[in-house]
Amino acid sequence: MSKLSVPRGIQRAILRRMHDAMGNPRLRLRLWNGVEAGAPQEESVGTAEIRDAGALLRIVLDPELQVGELYVTDRLEIEGGLVALLAAGFRANAQAGLLQRMLPKRLIARALDTSLSMATRNAQHHYDLGNEFYEFWLDERMVYTCAYFPTRETSLEEAQRAKMEHVCRKVALRPGEKVVEAGCGWGALALHMARHHGVSVRAFNVSGEQVEYAQEQAEKQGLSDRVEFVQDDYRNISGCYDAFVSVGMLEHVGLDHYEALGALIDRSLEPGGRGLIHTIGRSRPVRLNRWISKHVFPNAHPPTLSEMMRIFEPFDFAVLDVENLRAHYELTSDHWLRRYDEEYDRIEARVGRERARTWRFYLAGGVASYETGLLQLYQVLFTRAKNMQAPWHRGYVYTGEPAVPGDGPAGFGAEPAQVADGEG
Amino acid sequence: MSKLSVPRGIQRAILRRMHDAMGNPRLRLRLWNGVEAGAPQEESVGTAEIRDAGALLRIVLDPELQVGELYVTDRLEIEGGLVALLAAGFRANAQAGLLQRMLPKRLIARALDTSLSMATRNAQHHYDLGNEFYEFWLDERMVYTCAYFPTRETSLEEAQRAKMEHVCRKVALRPGEKVVEAGCGWGALALHMARHHGVSVRAFNVSGEQVEYAQEQAEKQGLSDRVEFVQDDYRNISGCYDAFVSVGMLEHVGLDHYEALGALIDRSLEPGGRGLIHTIGRSRPVRLNRWISKHVFPNAHPPTLSEMMRIFEPFDFAVLDVENLRAHYELTSDHWLRRYDEEYDRIEARVGRERARTWRFYLAGGVASYETGLLQLYQVLFTRAKNMQAPWHRGYVYTGEPAVPGDGPAGFGAEPAQVADGEG
Repeated sequence: MSKLSVPRGIQRAILRRMHDAMGNPRLRLRLWNGVEAGAPQEESVGTAEIRDAGALLRIVLDPELQVGELYVTDRLEIEGGLVALLAAGFRANAQAGLLQRMLPKRLIARALDTSLSMATRNAQHHYDLGNEFYEFWLDERMVYTCAYFPTRETSLEEAQRAKMEHVCRKVALRPGEKVVEAGCGWGALALHMARHHGVSVRAFNVSGEQVEYAQEQAEKQGLSDRVEFVQDDYRNISGCYDAFVSVGMLEHVGLDHYEALGALIDRSLEPGGRGLIHTIGRSRPVRLNRWISKHVFPNAHPPTLSEMMRIFEPFDFAVLDVENLRAHYELTSDHWLRRYDEEYDRIEARVGRERARTWRFYLAGGVASYETGLLQLYQVLFTRAKNMQAPWHRGYVYTGEPAVPGDGPAGFGAEPAQVADGEG
Repeated sequence: MSKLSVPRGIQRAILRRMHDAMGNPRLRLRLWNGVEAGAPQEESVGTAEIRDAGALLRIVLDPELQVGELYVTDRLEIEGGLVALLAAGFRANAQAGLLQRMLPKRLIARALDTSLSMATRNAQHHYDLGNEFYEFWLDERMVYTCAYFPTRETSLEEAQRAKMEHVCRKVALRPGEKVVEAGCGWGALALHMARHHGVSVRAFNVSGEQVEYAQEQAEKQGLSDRVEFVQDDYRNISGCYDAFVSVGMLEHVGLDHYEALGALIDRSLEPGGRGLIHTIGRSRPVRLNRWISKHVFPNAHPPTLSEMMRIFEPFDFAVLDVENLRAHYELTSDHWLRRYDEEYDRIEARVGRERARTWRFYLAGGVASYETGLLQLYQVLFTRAKNMQAPWHRGYVYTGEPAVPGDGPAGFGAEPAQVADGEG
């Protein structure tokens, strides 16, 4: 595709129209030939440079997919404001481009899909990049889900520990109980529960490399007798437990399987059992961004609360508590992006430029999504409707007091957890 | 209908079968002729006496409706365990009677509906009984919704005040803000918000008698300039507010109107506005008990959370927090029933035996419904998805700390409320 043979004045008008469609963010747009438009220089926090005419056409036709594709392949460069640019795009709800609204979808698809970018052909499953890649930018315990920051100044390390403790307190674990975890990542939560709450845990994960890492950690921490990591699909969970915990897996389950997940929990929970599901979600039903779906999270779906209820209502689970931690995920993603950028050169040297930029774009998109309220983070606590053995109110989660003062078995979670000691 | 001409042995077998269908509760069942069955005498907490053969037939055919009808008309007497009896019935999920499962529904309907009881003909709208009736058994502020008990020993008076304060803290009211309340009852919450949080309130209620009472209270407390009670339907709410609050009205709204309610909230809330809806609800979709629907709450519907989302999701409200206070409603109902029983003779003298027994049955049914998990109590806090101005986490609700330490406008709710002083 050759350069557009249109006057610079019209090129500038196109940029102005794009900037306008984005809600006039504090950003500048620039073409390969120096044509610029957007916010005044002194107000701008960054510049997006479109490096060739084909790239401009692609953005105009299908920004949702193409902005990411072009960024990754160096045909779109963002100086100084990737998060701001994405947030502006999300605020403008620019799922559809200017021409996209006018042209037949098939025509656009044919025009764009005939020349797939390298990034497309290199589409990688999310977790195939190896532990070392994640070690560059996750916390020391390799927790790859939303953290919980007691204050905005809390470190990521401490906030991930606080998140795990927050989950344990909500589920009100008692020493000696049996817990099953669906989707355990690198095992940090399972280890935390066993170490600080005296429970035994079976934790499931399909990734062999992650399970191996988790098992090593268990051995190092002397917890192998109380934590069993199982390399298997959550659908093969067997046995009966006092608590069901799943942090950051529901995104990958798929709406069609929610009722089956509910049935699984129903057969896995003791009569007095509690459960907690922590997931990225939506305030309204929106399909996942196509670029993310194609390059980062194939088939992922962040559910609305009404969609989540398909897990609980058919099996008469009573939802006891829902907490939306979206602001905490904005901050978590921001920590990840900063670490990623600090290590960027080493990351690029390791995984290659396209993949390094894919992940940078994805992490920035996360920050922007939470900042603009496009994504939510739900923690949903539940129990059987018939089970009235629950803490009297939620205050104990925050005050460190027993769940129910002086109450024995009914007041599970009665012992304030010991989180002061480090676990290496 | 004459007495059953069946041997006493078979009558006893019928009672045993009924007791079995109820899940063998610690209760005895007795017929008009002294035939008994059920739990052993020493384990029993009460006895249900069926006083004629027609009553027995009605219970067997359609317990959901008839147990209440017969209790109210003195054809069924409960000695010592009305709540326990109802809880046992709910646990057995005995919506359908023994014969009801076998006989055509139309046949049953014809058999029973041809001789309507007095209670049926006297069916009264819930709030038509006059303020004095409710004064017998509600707290001093006339709050007719679930209270919030900091401890199980908290008095009803204090727990109702704590509930109002809990709502205000969740909504994080700031002095000078404008609040609209949909369904304000006798006005206690509106007055509390104005008095303790320095906001101005417009509060809607269709009941003239309640609005009059509320206005008198506002004058007595010197709050008439800041609280406006409007005798009108919530659908006629106009204006724009910083907070939308509705406690105990959604039960009467009707599923078909949820989306219209969402639209109303959408046009009534400022961009940074927050909302809270407090409602009786369900863990799974179940229609309301027919006796309650017929005699106490016509057309009422306690929604599931997925049903409630019809209010929020179409308008892109982000749910920030859901709290299930069902155990607090069990205790609230229990307080109400105890007060009701203490005042029973005066109540019966005032409203007549049938109505007095109707309400006693209804209040006992409330306790039993929460005790068995048949009903839930949801408080749902929400804001626009785009509005990120919310307290950093929920701890401030419990610790009395500012919502966000040192943070100005964003940290609304920063001043711990003064709830120590009485308001007469």
